[in-house]
Amino acid sequence: MYGHLCGSTVHLGGGAREIIYDTGFFGRPKDDYLELTLIESVYLHYKGRITVELDGKDLDLEDLIYKSSRRMDNFEVKYIVYKDLRERGYYIKPGVTDFRVYPRGGRPGSTPSKYFVQALSERQILPLPQLIRQVETTDNLKKEMILAVVDEESDITFYSTKLRSMKGESKKISLNNDIRASLLEDRVIVWDIQETQNLHNELLYGKPLDEKRLHLSLIEAAYLQVNGLIIIRDSKKDVKNNILAPDIFAEQAAIVDPDFPLKLAVYKDLRDQGMVVKTGYKFGSHYRVYKKVNSKSKMKHSEFLVHAIDNDHIFNLPQLSRAVRLAHSVRKQMIFAWKAGNNIRYLEIGRIKM
Amino acid sequence: MYGHLCGSTVHLGGGAREIIYDTGFFGRPKDDYLELTLIESVYLHYKGRITVELDGKDLDLEDLIYKSSRRMDNFEVKYIVYKDLRERGYYIKPGVTDFRVYPRGGRPGSTPSKYFVQALSERQILPLPQLIRQVETTDNLKKEMILAVVDEESDITFYSTKLRSMKGESKKISLNNDIRASLLEDRVIVWDIQETQNLHNELLYGKPLDEKRLHLSLIEAAYLQVNGLIIIRDSKKDVKNNILAPDIFAEQAAIVDPDFPLKLAVYKDLRDQGMVVKTGYKFGSHYRVYKKVNSKSKMKHSEFLVHAIDNDHIFNLPQLSRAVRLAHSVRKQMIFAWKAGNNIRYLEIGRIKM
Repeated sequence: MYGHLCGSTVHLGGGAREIIYDTGFFGRPKDDYLELTLIESVYLHYKGRITVELDGKDLDLEDLIYKSSRRMDNFEVKYIVYKDLRERGYYIKPGVTDFRVYPRGGRPGSTPSKYFVQALSERQILPLPQLIRQVETTDNLKKEMILAVVDEESDITFYSTKLRSMKGESKKISLNNDIRASLLEDRVIVWDIQETQNLHNELLYGKPLDEKRLHLSLIEAAYLQVNGLIIIRDSKKDVKNNILAPDIFAEQAAIVDPDFPLKLAVYKDLRDQGMVVKTGYKFGSHYRVYKKVNSKSKMKHSEFLVHAIDNDHIFNLPQLSRAVRLAHSVRKQMIFAWKAGNNIRYLEIGRIKM
Repeated sequence: MYGHLCGSTVHLGGGAREIIYDTGFFGRPKDDYLELTLIESVYLHYKGRITVELDGKDLDLEDLIYKSSRRMDNFEVKYIVYKDLRERGYYIKPGVTDFRVYPRGGRPGSTPSKYFVQALSERQILPLPQLIRQVETTDNLKKEMILAVVDEESDITFYSTKLRSMKGESKKISLNNDIRASLLEDRVIVWDIQETQNLHNELLYGKPLDEKRLHLSLIEAAYLQVNGLIIIRDSKKDVKNNILAPDIFAEQAAIVDPDFPLKLAVYKDLRDQGMVVKTGYKFGSHYRVYKKVNSKSKMKHSEFLVHAIDNDHIFNLPQLSRAVRLAHSVRKQMIFAWKAGNNIRYLEIGRIKM
């Protein structure tokens, strides 16, 4: 077939509909021609199925790639993703993100598309607000939003992204109020061994340092404090009953850890939803989260890693890769959480094979 | 035993040498008393082996911890590490880092200490220059430098740190010079299928996009270019033989990737040392590195992840945790690399069990 390069499309004349569209769903049929994107054109040229001319001269593949690269941002990265999916049997159409992709075995006209795919170079940045808009649009259309990240060596990693809720099933138990605790540098100590055991064994708060003391993290202490369960004293003051009010405690915690207010908001939401939340330090995330734990002895594998981010966070893709890969390697789901008004929203990002 | 709190030490009187020092190597024997650190004192108080008084009044454990926390930075974190190691059978003395630790079965007086341990809260930052000085000092004394990082919930992760060299055994083969390549956005294409196969199959450069083209990363292209193996043309210019000089190419690459000069310096050193270097994107590091690869078909598991950092880099401990944990989970060693004058230096950081 013979085509003509026209801006950022290639027009194929008579017969193209039957030969090119009907056999592979390339291009968009117009009244008397078939319109191909640059990506489709390069692919069909590479396959030897079309010739493309400009100003009366045939373009070889190298020429056509040069022109495409100049006429379209990110051409090479998008082409790598297109070619990969196409050669593995997927039908692809242009879409609101880069590509609408049909499910395996499905095809345009008879099946709805399943995925919205966005192709990114690992060097691009991905602002959270932009990603959210895309995921919401995709959700509204009942599609799955997929990020296809092309690394420096042209390997592709696919990530599925979805907004989700977080809901746990841990029992709530009541405690004696006013448990005695002290702030010591960047952690809090509960002194009463009896209360220590209840807090730790039944609700999984803190870690026992010995038979006498339980260490709470600043986050845990703040949450228990605002719920009226513990009373925190300041160990830096000589008067033993120098009680720290919740706002003063939160202020001091924010000096030690500038992310404290954000992390506390996420922690509070997860605990309020019945999940058990522990530090994720060993996994490089803020929290590891359990859907259900009824006692320490029955503590299972945590299902989630949750990382709190600002609502204008900008994802750096190598860092995202590291977080998701690590979660994957320990069989957990990677969740990013941020504040949207008075609510916390959750985005799950996972590697998928396509 | 009865002791007296004196500044940031506790002094034990007559008989302490036999009862406390000789049985457990706590403290430093002086002429007529035994001097304990605050950490040793709190530990012995908790064990019920000593009583400590100040101004004629006995201090209970809570009081002694309060006082210690006010008299010593980071007391709680150091105490957590001390107690953990001590209770697992290690003898510990104060040292240039926080602790000198004797090997299992070893003891002060009869065995040299084996580890220098530094205790850190996960919230502390760790500047590379400071870490290097410590590791060099430790190396000179033939000890191992260990970081003990205490997370928010008082769990400890131990990291061994050592300076090392990187040397590979990959064969060097000669190639035809002046292979034709083009820069396209953020990657380089080699067009000649014959040269493509040699570059890729024998030296593991790049990734074939199809049977006609090989993609090189910017780093690979720059390295091959300065070694005179490829000639890179700029696809954005219409004249096909518009050749990019190495300095111009490097300039353009640094626009796409600000870390380019640093990453190239590390890449060059590793390749010059006979290692095979590929992108580490999937692992969130700059490179995955193979000691020996003789052909694509015999490509093995890569042994290292290498991440290039500035020589004034400041480690954030949760990020360090994530990198090391991920390397560990894929059975690779995590290496950080930086420029020191005209050389590249390498620091291996790995989790260890103590």
